[in-house]
Amino acid sequence: MNNKKVRIGLFGFGCVGKGLYDVLKTTPGLKAEIKKICVKDEYKSRPINKEYFTINKHVILDDPEINVVVELIDDSEAAYNIVTEALRKGKAVVTANKKMISENIENLLYLQSDAGIPLLYEAACCASIPLIRNFEEYYDNDLLQAFSGIMNGTTNFILTDMFNNDRQFAEALGYAQLHGYTESNPVLDLEGYDSKYKLNILMAHAFGLIVKPQNIFNFGIRRINSFDMQFIREKGGKIKLSAKARKLESGGIAAFVMPEIIYKNNELFIVDGVDNGIVTENYFSDKNIFIGKGAGAFPTAAAVLSDLSALSYNYKYEYKKKRQAENIYLDKDFYINVYIRYNRHNEFHLNELEELYEKYDSKTWSYVTGKINFQKLLEPGWIDDKSLNVMLLNDKIMKNK
Amino acid sequence: MNNKKVRIGLFGFGCVGKGLYDVLKTTPGLKAEIKKICVKDEYKSRPINKEYFTINKHVILDDPEINVVVELIDDSEAAYNIVTEALRKGKAVVTANKKMISENIENLLYLQSDAGIPLLYEAACCASIPLIRNFEEYYDNDLLQAFSGIMNGTTNFILTDMFNNDRQFAEALGYAQLHGYTESNPVLDLEGYDSKYKLNILMAHAFGLIVKPQNIFNFGIRRINSFDMQFIREKGGKIKLSAKARKLESGGIAAFVMPEIIYKNNELFIVDGVDNGIVTENYFSDKNIFIGKGAGAFPTAAAVLSDLSALSYNYKYEYKKKRQAENIYLDKDFYINVYIRYNRHNEFHLNELEELYEKYDSKTWSYVTGKINFQKLLEPGWIDDKSLNVMLLNDKIMKNK
Repeated sequence: MNNKKVRIGLFGFGCVGKGLYDVLKTTPGLKAEIKKICVKDEYKSRPINKEYFTINKHVILDDPEINVVVELIDDSEAAYNIVTEALRKGKAVVTANKKMISENIENLLYLQSDAGIPLLYEAACCASIPLIRNFEEYYDNDLLQAFSGIMNGTTNFILTDMFNNDRQFAEALGYAQLHGYTESNPVLDLEGYDSKYKLNILMAHAFGLIVKPQNIFNFGIRRINSFDMQFIREKGGKIKLSAKARKLESGGIAAFVMPEIIYKNNELFIVDGVDNGIVTENYFSDKNIFIGKGAGAFPTAAAVLSDLSALSYNYKYEYKKKRQAENIYLDKDFYINVYIRYNRHNEFHLNELEELYEKYDSKTWSYVTGKINFQKLLEPGWIDDKSLNVMLLNDKIMKNK
Repeated sequence: MNNKKVRIGLFGFGCVGKGLYDVLKTTPGLKAEIKKICVKDEYKSRPINKEYFTINKHVILDDPEINVVVELIDDSEAAYNIVTEALRKGKAVVTANKKMISENIENLLYLQSDAGIPLLYEAACCASIPLIRNFEEYYDNDLLQAFSGIMNGTTNFILTDMFNNDRQFAEALGYAQLHGYTESNPVLDLEGYDSKYKLNILMAHAFGLIVKPQNIFNFGIRRINSFDMQFIREKGGKIKLSAKARKLESGGIAAFVMPEIIYKNNELFIVDGVDNGIVTENYFSDKNIFIGKGAGAFPTAAAVLSDLSALSYNYKYEYKKKRQAENIYLDKDFYINVYIRYNRHNEFHLNELEELYEKYDSKTWSYVTGKINFQKLLEPGWIDDKSLNVMLLNDKIMKNK
């Protein structure tokens, strides 16, 4: 497919699907056209000719003229079936489904190399910000040390709103829902799963690390209360939901999703509202920062378009790092600095901390700040207690005490 | 050269050349080695084995084992000769020489396509920030509308210092020189030529526009005085040397380098000191921001390394936009909002402005702010008067009055 015509079979015609349709109309330079669109409800009223639509996936999958499948549906299991079947039938695939990719990355890798057919998914990680391609190509060497980012627009919108307008979590969530910034089921966003899927996908390209998402720790923003907010404000910080991965001296990778208190000197301090931002840390070249719209119909469609264009030039992810990374693994034995807020009726065991920095008690809430071994957070014990909240105090991830 | 060994002939062993040598030692994943280094002074004491060095360029250019030439010398004419000879001899080339590329871009394009040999130069545009590759690949469609950036670390260091420490230009320049942040001849940086070369190269990849750098207007930072600084401060702004390119309704491209007053809402407000930053504006996906180290031995070497890695996978710039862009041209007939400061003995002609916003007079200096046709700045008349300074007031570039 060397700059040949891209004939698309599209699955899903929600916001992003419609967005892609609009975007394609304004990009005559790319020789791409949508031939057929597979939807659930054939009879729903739609702004384009109904000849385009089908409810039978085989109309697309069995059409030899269609050389690219664009998968933009919600259901990650159905998506996986479509994507794998398309690849097996020799059709290149573009998808934005982070959950589906993250949960099936090992199989998808195998299938791509087996079928020799490209599967691209730039839109799955922070929509319009070009991350996967840069990890694959520009950072294709041993110099990348870490990346960290605000990878979820919904939680960033809510946290910004809580911070700027002194709102409680529930109130800010309602406000976000009112403005259409949440999914119908917001749990994946709020508990950090969405960020984790992206983190997981990016780690495959950044470090060659392939792991199941359930092995990566995620802690969301639902427990952040006004007491925590007051602490953050008093310290001159802001609160962000961070997804982080860092190469340790051990050769392993530390990775997790957690709320993080950041300060003015942090490169992502300005990333508010629905924006996303990523910082890479590199031997020799210090930090690079990427900021942009991480969600939304058009930013996502624009990233899909960029993948379509790449396909017309036969581009494929090479997963080069995976070949280079021999002994890479997810390392859970490291230390971080945290703020832990808890209920005075539920005394926190100070000996859980490696080092205590501060301790504050009051009639309502108490907190400690200190250094903790990351594995403590993975123990099913105290962290399940809903009256407790944990936030990262700073960016330090230490292999040794 | 498909993931084959990269055997390098290196021209120049200054800061960046030494940096590259160090970087290569720590990246075993990339199968690349320096075979020979061509320098001017064979007998200078150097930290590595003198067997590496030669003063005869043909030792590299005629060695069939060397498959990549890395050109890192100052002299842009000598560099051009080396690069063209290497390409003709079938050797891939990596260079960081923005002046050389910008001044010869048309010939270099022809030579690459004629010889079928890649010439890569990511390091030439803002060192460690991946720009060219993203313009080539990720923004490979009609959606890119504009880009604007702080592309020169030296001037940004000086302007930041003038602003933060209330220093005059001459004093800040001396301070930058003392800290090794200036070239031996700083004029290319201070007058905006360096930024212009980068702008010119990026425009080829972003819009397919190939023009001689002398056709692009550049106005530097040497005239900024404490009166101007006071104006900037009173308005709550900061001052940056901006390089801008924007697609106009006409289909042409507006492009120039000028000092710009920016405010807190500007995405590059936080880019201080020697950092560089670029904002792209895109239909559908709004803005993307890229920030990082835009100069220095290691950031430049890291970008060179990334190009070397790309060569090992047969990567080439395709200049796709050039093929897509049929009627693209440099449009000079547009309007911008400016601040013009002048000497009261040298009355500024108000009728030069399309629209007057403000006028201020004092015993020492006077200023106006207003809308001006860009072509006025190109007239050899008043702008040559050293007592006058011009700064962009905001990011607006308007095709019509």
